[in-house]
Amino acid sequence: MPAQLPDQVRIREVGPRDGFQNEPEVIATADKLRLIGMLADAGLRRIEVTSFVRADVIPQLADAAEVLAGLEPREGVAYSVLIPNRKGLENALPLIERFQEANFFLSASETHNRKNVNRSVEESLAELEGTISAAAGAGLRCEGVISTSFGCPYEGEVEPGRVLEIARALTGFGCEEIGFGDTTGMANPRQVGEFFGRAGEQLGGVELTAHFHNTRGQGLANALAALEAGVTSFESSFGELGGCPVPPGATGNIATEDLVSMLEEMHIDTGIDLGRLLEASRSAQEVLGRPLGAHTLVAGPVDWRPASRPR
Amino acid sequence: MPAQLPDQVRIREVGPRDGFQNEPEVIATADKLRLIGMLADAGLRRIEVTSFVRADVIPQLADAAEVLAGLEPREGVAYSVLIPNRKGLENALPLIERFQEANFFLSASETHNRKNVNRSVEESLAELEGTISAAAGAGLRCEGVISTSFGCPYEGEVEPGRVLEIARALTGFGCEEIGFGDTTGMANPRQVGEFFGRAGEQLGGVELTAHFHNTRGQGLANALAALEAGVTSFESSFGELGGCPVPPGATGNIATEDLVSMLEEMHIDTGIDLGRLLEASRSAQEVLGRPLGAHTLVAGPVDWRPASRPR
Repeated sequence: MPAQLPDQVRIREVGPRDGFQNEPEVIATADKLRLIGMLADAGLRRIEVTSFVRADVIPQLADAAEVLAGLEPREGVAYSVLIPNRKGLENALPLIERFQEANFFLSASETHNRKNVNRSVEESLAELEGTISAAAGAGLRCEGVISTSFGCPYEGEVEPGRVLEIARALTGFGCEEIGFGDTTGMANPRQVGEFFGRAGEQLGGVELTAHFHNTRGQGLANALAALEAGVTSFESSFGELGGCPVPPGATGNIATEDLVSMLEEMHIDTGIDLGRLLEASRSAQEVLGRPLGAHTLVAGPVDWRPASRPR
Repeated sequence: MPAQLPDQVRIREVGPRDGFQNEPEVIATADKLRLIGMLADAGLRRIEVTSFVRADVIPQLADAAEVLAGLEPREGVAYSVLIPNRKGLENALPLIERFQEANFFLSASETHNRKNVNRSVEESLAELEGTISAAAGAGLRCEGVISTSFGCPYEGEVEPGRVLEIARALTGFGCEEIGFGDTTGMANPRQVGEFFGRAGEQLGGVELTAHFHNTRGQGLANALAALEAGVTSFESSFGELGGCPVPPGATGNIATEDLVSMLEEMHIDTGIDLGRLLEASRSAQEVLGRPLGAHTLVAGPVDWRPASRPR
């Protein structure tokens, strides 16, 4: 490879929140807890488990408190909760002993932010300032996620300087980690490499996380470009669950098993046991009653053993 | 990007041979010709159109002579024909005015070659020597394709030195181009970058073509790694048709539209009009009566126009 690649990366599994939220059916709390346990067993050390959103808007996550109460605490595993607003934080704080990380989001583009949360970007930042400060003050490690960082389906191009400005604001509020989301899969590897090169220079001391979607099949190519630009933190979803499929039918998040397969084959350590991860995805298929889209889930892992046979 | 990227690349469309061959139904010759015409209209300048194989073994390509006879000659478009053996060449030569390129294949691994053509690699090379010499002597531009160049489902690792040795033998027989096939999707970007770096050093003056499969979702990441290692020639299949899906249900060839989408977004010129290419894929969906798997076919191209709406 032309670029220096890292020896290891961190992967946050977002399926239990981002994936389950986007399912038409509400998944039973016991199934959620069992699947989260399987993900931790597979070696995932960062798992986004739920969100405190309005139950009438997103009934799939109405059991947020029950999920947190039922989680098995695990040494070395950080559970994270998506906090949409101040009210969400208030609902989450009584359960603060049950999770370690909180994440907060807004969009880099005005139109997408307004359609998503009915606020301007400045209004979102103003509310996030107090919410993130309060969460960080309560001892939660905070991640700020910036949607449409690589392009907006309504506005087209998104100015990288604006994304970095928002990132600096979020770190000022108390975020130790910034996630850059390619919400509708518009990023390309050249853009990703250039963006993270610049972000690395301007955001020293902050963990930079890449969150790609596979909308146009380029998700892992973008992950490779990010790796080459120095990124060592990724978010993905087991089975290829969830992740804003626009338009309907399109693929959302990159699949955790495909990302792990690529990285481990490249001798980049993820700490994840691909076989056990695939067990979790197969179990999710049973719960959901449908096949999931991750390529490695269909094809199986690369098997380098001599004389092995295709499965 | 850390590496220097090319300004333009060449893409050979292999769907009309590799894709149609792997369909359960035999496609009507008129439909094949119409789809090939649409691909040429979309700007594809290299199209693999058929193969002279035994009609009792592969009835899907039994109309090879009719396809060649019906092709519209186009300025700047090279039609290529897969030639499996000496007999295939004999059958193709009477129609030599109708196509410009011939391609020939063997596997880099003994077990895969034996299962595929019931010969050792040395036996295949011995037969190919005469066949390729005859084709080149007749004025055809010859490509040698080496299957399982990045791993074998039966033997595991394939020694890069052995692949390059086979490549040198094929160029000695008269091949001006060598295609390296990742037949069951075992390649990873680190391996691809290292391999093509070495191939570029050792095979000066030969066109090196990358042929990736998306079996584990890494096809475009491997294409990016090849690009960064200096590769400017690729093979892919419109709609994501064809390409040895092992196991059944797995994805085969990378989709031409996803490759074109990535490259054009990176400002690398392919000469291909993505909109017209998608029309060809949509027409193929109608002919085949099923949806095809290319991501960009489902999601639509990235649309950077301000104020555009998700489709």
